[in-house]
Amino acid sequence: MERVLASAFVAGYVKDDITPEELERQQALYAPFTQAVRELVDATIRTEVDDDEIRAVQAEVEALAARLRASQLDGAYGVRFGPTGRGRPWGNTVVGLRNPVAPPLVVEKRPTGECWSDFHLGAAYEGPPGLVHGGVSALILDQMLGEAAGAGGKPGMTGTLTLRYRRGTPLGDLRVEAWIDRSEGIKTWAKGQIRDAEGVTVEAEGVFILPRWARPENPEDRPRYFE
Amino acid sequence: MERVLASAFVAGYVKDDITPEELERQQALYAPFTQAVRELVDATIRTEVDDDEIRAVQAEVEALAARLRASQLDGAYGVRFGPTGRGRPWGNTVVGLRNPVAPPLVVEKRPTGECWSDFHLGAAYEGPPGLVHGGVSALILDQMLGEAAGAGGKPGMTGTLTLRYRRGTPLGDLRVEAWIDRSEGIKTWAKGQIRDAEGVTVEAEGVFILPRWARPENPEDRPRYFE
Repeated sequence: MERVLASAFVAGYVKDDITPEELERQQALYAPFTQAVRELVDATIRTEVDDDEIRAVQAEVEALAARLRASQLDGAYGVRFGPTGRGRPWGNTVVGLRNPVAPPLVVEKRPTGECWSDFHLGAAYEGPPGLVHGGVSALILDQMLGEAAGAGGKPGMTGTLTLRYRRGTPLGDLRVEAWIDRSEGIKTWAKGQIRDAEGVTVEAEGVFILPRWARPENPEDRPRYFE
Repeated sequence: MERVLASAFVAGYVKDDITPEELERQQALYAPFTQAVRELVDATIRTEVDDDEIRAVQAEVEALAARLRASQLDGAYGVRFGPTGRGRPWGNTVVGLRNPVAPPLVVEKRPTGECWSDFHLGAAYEGPPGLVHGGVSALILDQMLGEAAGAGGKPGMTGTLTLRYRRGTPLGDLRVEAWIDRSEGIKTWAKGQIRDAEGVTVEAEGVFILPRWARPENPEDRPRYFE
């Protein structure tokens, strides 16, 4: 327990050392639960049921939130990690298994840094009518460029990020790809793009910087990955 | 009705011409309903109730989504607008009154393009532990720079967007500001920043381009604002 608290102090990463069986149990419990809330979010935007039904559903949603809050974390989820050093960022806005705001992206990666994900964006991610919000494309590319840096052994926090929008990205089935362009000391340059069936819609380039607490000279417990 | 359909064809903007009273009625109905779902999203991430309770709540959430889906839009919400030309982007990921993913930001603006918003980000917007996801900052700044361009009479779709992360942005109470830097023909350059109590954490600069269908030579119905 003291060890967990000490680690938690390192920028909020919590070493909980759960077993593979416990990890599997948590995934099996929380993935479908969070997905059910994602469906509710989508239905909330698109529903056309009458006013009385909206009010009735609202009362039930409030009661469910109260039940969940009967016991809850004081703040955000943070990132937990175990003996392998692989982080579990389950509250993350893009990939979080427990975050209904996350589509979530499931990211495939190679040790050289190439990453990709096939994903779907529905009504909750709209900007211009029928199109993905330009900022949602930025959100996803920020995550993926960071994933590329991490997968290539150069994890970091975003320093700069530049996006070029070639055309509107339609809501629906999409793909995102990212890779490391080059790396110097604590800095890694990564690039990426979002594609629909017709080709590239948005391009991104960013610099990722290894935080001070995660540099090799720091002896404290820390995740080796923090995707 | 034909008029609405014709307008809907113009890039998905729907001219519905609702009265001010109907607008007020819809706001009073949907704002608290959507807020209840936002609370459920937060509770979903942070809950520590036991497995049986998670499964029980999941079943109820699924039933509520089914009730809402008894009558729903075919796709995303889109943007509706009325006689004033002011758009209602209620499905928008950042400002959408009906979107539980949106914090939502309530944006103050001046006709010269200055925009600002005081807002709060909780557990759903986490990247590194306890910090706002870098991509969420990008999402919010993309919206706000677009709002500045629109408020200054130069609405547009994002062409490029560049973000500089000066330090981590803590979850909690934040402020975002945006303004027009300059404008030439169909292009507008906007800038903005996110601040916490200690100062600026992220800076952004972007180019916004007036879409072809919204240019003055196009005679069809369209919103004059599409924030």
